[in-house]
Amino acid sequence: MPPPPRYNRAMDSLPDLRRHPLPAGFIERLRQRFADACQTAEAIRAQHGGSESHFPTVLPDAVVFVRDTKDVVDCVDLCREGGVALVPFGAGTSLEGHTLPLAGGISLDLSRMDTVLAVNEADFDCTVQPGIRREALNAHLRDTGLFFPIDPGANATIGGMAATRASGTNAVRYGTMREAVLGLEVVTPQGKVVTTGRRARKSAAGYDLTRLYIGSEGTLGIITAITLRLHPVPEAVMAATCPFATLEGAVDTVVQAFHAGVPMARIELLDAMQVHAVNLRAGLGLPEAPTLFFEFHGSETGVAEQVEMVRTLAGANGGGDFHWATRTEDRTRLWRARHEAYYAAVGLRPNAIGWTSDVCVPMSRLAQCILETREDLDRASVPATIVGHVGDGNFHAIFSIDPAAPHELDEVAEINRRMVARALAMGGTCTGEHGIGIGKQDMLVDELGEDAVDVMRALKRALDPQNLFNPGKIFRL
Amino acid sequence: MPPPPRYNRAMDSLPDLRRHPLPAGFIERLRQRFADACQTAEAIRAQHGGSESHFPTVLPDAVVFVRDTKDVVDCVDLCREGGVALVPFGAGTSLEGHTLPLAGGISLDLSRMDTVLAVNEADFDCTVQPGIRREALNAHLRDTGLFFPIDPGANATIGGMAATRASGTNAVRYGTMREAVLGLEVVTPQGKVVTTGRRARKSAAGYDLTRLYIGSEGTLGIITAITLRLHPVPEAVMAATCPFATLEGAVDTVVQAFHAGVPMARIELLDAMQVHAVNLRAGLGLPEAPTLFFEFHGSETGVAEQVEMVRTLAGANGGGDFHWATRTEDRTRLWRARHEAYYAAVGLRPNAIGWTSDVCVPMSRLAQCILETREDLDRASVPATIVGHVGDGNFHAIFSIDPAAPHELDEVAEINRRMVARALAMGGTCTGEHGIGIGKQDMLVDELGEDAVDVMRALKRALDPQNLFNPGKIFRL
Repeated sequence: MPPPPRYNRAMDSLPDLRRHPLPAGFIERLRQRFADACQTAEAIRAQHGGSESHFPTVLPDAVVFVRDTKDVVDCVDLCREGGVALVPFGAGTSLEGHTLPLAGGISLDLSRMDTVLAVNEADFDCTVQPGIRREALNAHLRDTGLFFPIDPGANATIGGMAATRASGTNAVRYGTMREAVLGLEVVTPQGKVVTTGRRARKSAAGYDLTRLYIGSEGTLGIITAITLRLHPVPEAVMAATCPFATLEGAVDTVVQAFHAGVPMARIELLDAMQVHAVNLRAGLGLPEAPTLFFEFHGSETGVAEQVEMVRTLAGANGGGDFHWATRTEDRTRLWRARHEAYYAAVGLRPNAIGWTSDVCVPMSRLAQCILETREDLDRASVPATIVGHVGDGNFHAIFSIDPAAPHELDEVAEINRRMVARALAMGGTCTGEHGIGIGKQDMLVDELGEDAVDVMRALKRALDPQNLFNPGKIFRL
Repeated sequence: MPPPPRYNRAMDSLPDLRRHPLPAGFIERLRQRFADACQTAEAIRAQHGGSESHFPTVLPDAVVFVRDTKDVVDCVDLCREGGVALVPFGAGTSLEGHTLPLAGGISLDLSRMDTVLAVNEADFDCTVQPGIRREALNAHLRDTGLFFPIDPGANATIGGMAATRASGTNAVRYGTMREAVLGLEVVTPQGKVVTTGRRARKSAAGYDLTRLYIGSEGTLGIITAITLRLHPVPEAVMAATCPFATLEGAVDTVVQAFHAGVPMARIELLDAMQVHAVNLRAGLGLPEAPTLFFEFHGSETGVAEQVEMVRTLAGANGGGDFHWATRTEDRTRLWRARHEAYYAAVGLRPNAIGWTSDVCVPMSRLAQCILETREDLDRASVPATIVGHVGDGNFHAIFSIDPAAPHELDEVAEINRRMVARALAMGGTCTGEHGIGIGKQDMLVDELGEDAVDVMRALKRALDPQNLFNPGKIFRL
């Protein structure tokens, strides 16, 4: 049984994408080419038309499971000839409705393209198909002494992470997908297979097509292979949590560590309610206070130096004892709990749906932005936590919403709008890592202006003149 | 007196850009708006139509010196209405003919837009106008405890460095202009002023327009302001040179240091002839052997650790004693000599003109690529040095060419072609940092394929439908 469509007033403001019926015989042509890899069962369509956030389910007409680049090209060619829209789908874990097929058509499921095509250990790079998930990639790399650091909360696919310019807890040290990708193979709306970059660690060869496709949310091309930078597993790794008397003390510690240039690998903030939520879900047994999760990477002496500096800063800001996760399995447990913070916070109420906001501000404004946001959340009628990749100035509020109470969605939409307005007024961005999708199109205009979005529209029209690749996302054409 | 146009067979293969005469009264309209800031004297036009490399001089019809974004918009508007081409000009230090006005028209000189608009010390960022040069920016930052690391050899403008996706000696640790820029203000061919990003350290807000304009070589927009990431001046800095018995030993040391994960700030290779050239120019008095220039940044103990590791590696690969530049002025002298390597190598013959190649390969192929290239250079009839940002896999050959001997240009063109073909066969790129300009258009196609370049052409046509912004660069339309 597909889940019932959810009410969502955010959808009211979306453009009418005038869904034409499929051309006669289109599904038959797909079946001829893809046989059982073309599915129209309602349960499968519903799974591809939902999201992990608060958006209503929108069904594609069919789901096509592709195995290789040739499959993608053939599906794109059929869609182009038929004038049928096409939305790439990986793990379905994006948070701004990216994979919803607003104009119907095909959900192109890339999850079976999950092969590691090459690992070049001597060059610290690898090439993968888009459907592999980040945890599977790191499992594959386990014996190489290398790892792939980008880690959004969900166990997302590498293709989806590239398409949404994802980041995560390690970004403060290792960068985001923007820095992690050396080159892409992309299928264009014309059915061409384009290579955007090679394995050199830098290049000035023409327009930066790699970066153009990263974060384009499936609207310009379908990513069919990704060449990634890898990093050596550090000689020493230490992870710890530290509770603080106040939220302010925790954030001040982060900002001061940034100013001191401490090269931390991870520095994550969970407010008291978020710690409560992860305790409930993962049984961590942490004191329910604003808490920083740290990880230090480097040589033995380098890590010891970092730890010493951060402990001093934390102590001066009302931090308590550091609780160390020394064994690998303890670290894994700690970071799994952190990665599942979204599910933990949404789960604070039974049968709730989630909505997470996502802003990023300059470090000098981080404390004010978080404290004002927490005050706003304290006045809300729904439970809301704050969690963040604060070393980058990036944080989220996570709301747990009763799907039977539409006014809660309205209330959260207002809080979210205020939170973005606050971040923009501070020189920040409306999204540090979740993207625009269908949830933040007006905010993108608020952030960069109509002229900048017009440039994006011009790029979209130039590369996808029929508007068939994930139509309706990022902006209204 | 302008210098005489130089013979260059590379120009034969350029498209005929059919230079129309300027529309009647166009210069008068420019003069009306810009008064003395519009110049048509031949000496000034020649200065803007030349280059620091082997390309012939191509004169613009006029040079317009702009003071602010409004000036740029007005000049763009006049050019668009008149159908007149327009080439942005900063310091004129690019190496692939980027600023040559192939279709005539206006050379838009941005060097007077050289103001630091804001420094946000607490956020490690600043916003500058495009005409400021990198050394002036660092002089301005001197008392803040921050610095801007990107340093191509020339004292280039920040706008030009953004437009060509420049890097330099610090890129191995601090990245290139791609990583250094948080956001841009850009004037489009339609005369719109577009903001591409704000001061947050990461963002997933729509297409990555910042990275689209970085490296677009003035063909898509005129950069009028740049927000840059800065870095704290490290607690400890140590610089040294180390001569090696063989070129191979020097390169192997670099590759092994990369594999060991030593976070060096700079690791630069000069072959024996390049050391000879910098000795001649800067009186460094170094042993004339293949030499590595190092710089280590970090805490006192961190730097000591790095030094120890690299000395061990160098010793095992035939490295001699480290010669330390301990005082700031010694370090400055050392790096100035390194930055002027191009002028030093070209100056090996009197009145010579220069040509420098620029490839970047995966680290595992670096030794082979450099050694084969050095063998090829040894067979050449012109002096040629090798110098490189080898920590990134990026290196250059610098040729000193007699302008009265056209066969030398032909010979160097062939060596350059072989060098790029070698790098591409190894998974590398035809340009690590110098860009495409007019010198490497065929090589760009060899590297990424015609379909990828077609995507670039589609972007150009979409954003600059009249083809007025730096026409003829990167690709043939």
